[in-house]
Amino acid sequence: MATDYAFTGLEVLGTVAFAVSGAAVAARAGLDWLGVAVLAVVTAVGGGTLRDLLLGHPVTWLHDPWPVWLAFGVAILAIGWLYGGWLRARQLGTTVMFADAVGLSVFTVAGTEIAVAAGIRAPVAVLLGVVTGAGGGVVRDVLARQRPLVLVGEIYALAALSGATGYVLLWEVSAPPEVARWTGVAITLALRLAAVRWRWALPKLPTGRAEQARS
Amino acid sequence: MATDYAFTGLEVLGTVAFAVSGAAVAARAGLDWLGVAVLAVVTAVGGGTLRDLLLGHPVTWLHDPWPVWLAFGVAILAIGWLYGGWLRARQLGTTVMFADAVGLSVFTVAGTEIAVAAGIRAPVAVLLGVVTGAGGGVVRDVLARQRPLVLVGEIYALAALSGATGYVLLWEVSAPPEVARWTGVAITLALRLAAVRWRWALPKLPTGRAEQARS
Amino acid sequence: MATDYAFTGLEVLGTVAFAVSGAAVAARAGLDWLGVAVLAVVTAVGGGTLRDLLLGHPVTWLHDPWPVWLAFGVAILAIGWLYGGWLRARQLGTTVMFADAVGLSVFTVAGTEIAVAAGIRAPVAVLLGVVTGAGGGVVRDVLARQRPLVLVGEIYALAALSGATGYVLLWEVSAPPEVARWTGVAITLALRLAAVRWRWALPKLPTGRAEQARS
Repeated sequence: MATDYAFTGLEVLGTVAFAVSGAAVAARAGLDWLGVAVLAVVTAVGGGTLRDLLLGHPVTWLHDPWPVWLAFGVAILAIGWLYGGWLRARQLGTTVMFADAVGLSVFTVAGTEIAVAAGIRAPVAVLLGVVTGAGGGVVRDVLARQRPLVLVGEIYALAALSGATGYVLLWEVSAPPEVARWTGVAITLALRLAAVRWRWALPKLPTGRAEQARS
Repeated sequence: MATDYAFTGLEVLGTVAFAVSGAAVAARAGLDWLGVAVLAVVTAVGGGTLRDLLLGHPVTWLHDPWPVWLAFGVAILAIGWLYGGWLRARQLGTTVMFADAVGLSVFTVAGTEIAVAAGIRAPVAVLLGVVTGAGGGVVRDVLARQRPLVLVGEIYALAALSGATGYVLLWEVSAPPEVARWTGVAITLALRLAAVRWRWALPKLPTGRAEQARS
Repeated sequence: MATDYAFTGLEVLGTVAFAVSGAAVAARAGLDWLGVAVLAVVTAVGGGTLRDLLLGHPVTWLHDPWPVWLAFGVAILAIGWLYGGWLRARQLGTTVMFADAVGLSVFTVAGTEIAVAAGIRAPVAVLLGVVTGAGGGVVRDVLARQRPLVLVGEIYALAALSGATGYVLLWEVSAPPEVARWTGVAITLALRLAAVRWRWALPKLPTGRAEQARS
């Protein structure tokens, strides 16, 4: 896939988006400059690393480390924006949510595509796509000691499952790769952003309420 | 081991038990329906995935995904039970404890058996069994932001170590596989349940008390 | 590298140091005896395990488990010291900080050396060294539900980056391995200890302050 520039474009977009989300979470948590860079890089490469380990593939960034340097550059820019006042502290929550949605959408589809190409059957490829898309954010949230977004609800895992399924269905009917990819990305992103905007959520279990107040 | 139905029975039991524990933790934490399913699946396959990665084996569920679908089905049933009122909110704590004990017992022995079969020497195979048995619960607790059960005490790691050691000793004297397996499971389960029932615990360090109150 | 006794010396030192830090964190958290041993072992082998998984190498301790037994022995000694009164509860914080700094310094250089030997290019080898050095502590802090030291600041990741870079530069100019190693270790350890002693820190972002108070 080395010469599939369109696929690389997908990965660049996801890397930038997750790096922004990691840097914004770090900035909210009051970390220092290097902490911001560390969390940006870990978020950006975390999902893909998990996918490579599960598939038994060589970890991509060890031999082709551009996502590391790209995420590092994004962190530097994010720090500059914050100091320059172009990005205000109270916008960080929105920044995290939006950038995370873009990263989730893109990496879910990219992970599903790589799993399908590795000969994984479609339903499992969809799951591996969701693991790839959600994985970076989970690592970010565990390290920053936040509740993982994938468990907060608001149509997070469902959006990723829908986008990955859309991609796989189009791929099964031999749609052009570009159409399948961007349709999958669009489904996930639209569902996730709509859920945040209009506070869509799956029903919570009746048991949860009392316990949640207690925790 | 594809035709070893008895071994598969062990894995089915462990998968169901850990899926129940993951679903119950998620229900207590007030997650939505899909969050319950996600935590059930992750708990059920987490320990085995960690074991496969450490052993350098292909990750089982990628090519033979029945544990994923089984855990998903268990989560659906658990949600139904909660809505139907067959499982009450105040029983969730007990459910987590009991299901986790069964999963721990079964996966510890299954992990030890797989490690021995992979040529790992007995003492390290015991440790890998404990990692397999405790791993799914650790992933569950870290994601749900609970204190990992393996560190809470109450004869958790000790029960797993004892069961795995029992299995290995019987295996060394060429006991029938079924006898070795179920003896190992019974040792772990009996020790763990007795510890919870009668509040057995290893001594805590004298230093811990003041610090614990503070945290 | 089986006969490179000097390299093994490096690993022994790092294993002991991280085991001490894990045992001390566990003692502070009020864990029981076996919990202290579990956290000591996990901290001591965590970083190297992560490094082996990322590199696609067999996990070292599965076939050559001395670090596991060494960390276990250290935990027993630490428990004895605490009971004997040679190590007081209020010294545990200092013990964690100092032992963690030694483990970080040694494993960062050891990880960088292994990455370079595996044919990873220098800048990525430096990153993998930092992952190795910081990894055990991250696992320890996530399990014990502490804020990961690598994100607390106080020149932690920067110290590791500097030491790994020092090692790589000396290696590039064909310095004797022993000189390169111990220079790298000394750079990391000196920077980290000086940062803790004189409260050096990289600047935090302006956004962090209000948020930090809130969390």
